[in-house]
Amino acid sequence: MSAEPSTEDLVADVFARDCTSRRALENVTGKWGGLALTALREGPYRFNALRRRVDGVSEKMLAQTLQALERDGLVKREVLATIPARVEYTLTPLGADVAEQIFGLIELIESRMPEVTAARADYDANH
Amino acid sequence: MSAEPSTEDLVADVFARDCTSRRALENVTGKWGGLALTALREGPYRFNALRRRVDGVSEKMLAQTLQALERDGLVKREVLATIPARVEYTLTPLGADVAEQIFGLIELIESRMPEVTAARADYDANH
Repeated sequence: MSAEPSTEDLVADVFARDCTSRRALENVTGKWGGLALTALREGPYRFNALRRRVDGVSEKMLAQTLQALERDGLVKREVLATIPARVEYTLTPLGADVAEQIFGLIELIESRMPEVTAARADYDANH
Repeated sequence: MSAEPSTEDLVADVFARDCTSRRALENVTGKWGGLALTALREGPYRFNALRRRVDGVSEKMLAQTLQALERDGLVKREVLATIPARVEYTLTPLGADVAEQIFGLIELIESRMPEVTAARADYDANH
């Protein structure tokens, strides 16, 4: 008999500060989330190899990043039955879709860097 | 006679920690950059209206965010010749392209939130 809407009825809105979708967006766009997802487009990675690929990330930050992405269902952590045991990270189907979108953003920015660099020089000369 | 490559010869690579493109990527995907750019897809905004739209951002953080986006050439800050003077923020053509890509990411995440929520419940039940 409650008049409160169930969460099923709510539409996700990243602009609302308490919407869970904003947290999910932050996990994939945070300092390392986007790079980790994009690297995993290349195939499964073991932790240390992924750390080398995402140049500059600390062990602790990469572990936190992967944990958040795993919790959101974007990355799968798999312990392989090898001796010694290996841990491998792969994209889930949802993670692959998100990574594709982020990859598009990265390609766009990389290709437009001459414009960005020119804008920065202009800004710095006038401020 | 220097053998050093000029920056013109370098290809932008966000995976390299010192590449300027990584900083540009962080500015658009940082905690508030993506939301500010996406809001500006809706049209020009004055500072306080934009702050209301991007629910939860502080005045200081929004000012810093807009300054970084302006420096990167993604947002244009315009002082209108009204009395009292008004300051308006709009997307540049480059900013519009970047905002479109981020909007695609937001739409994807918002539409897939049921999967994310289910993954979180599953993760929390098993960790």
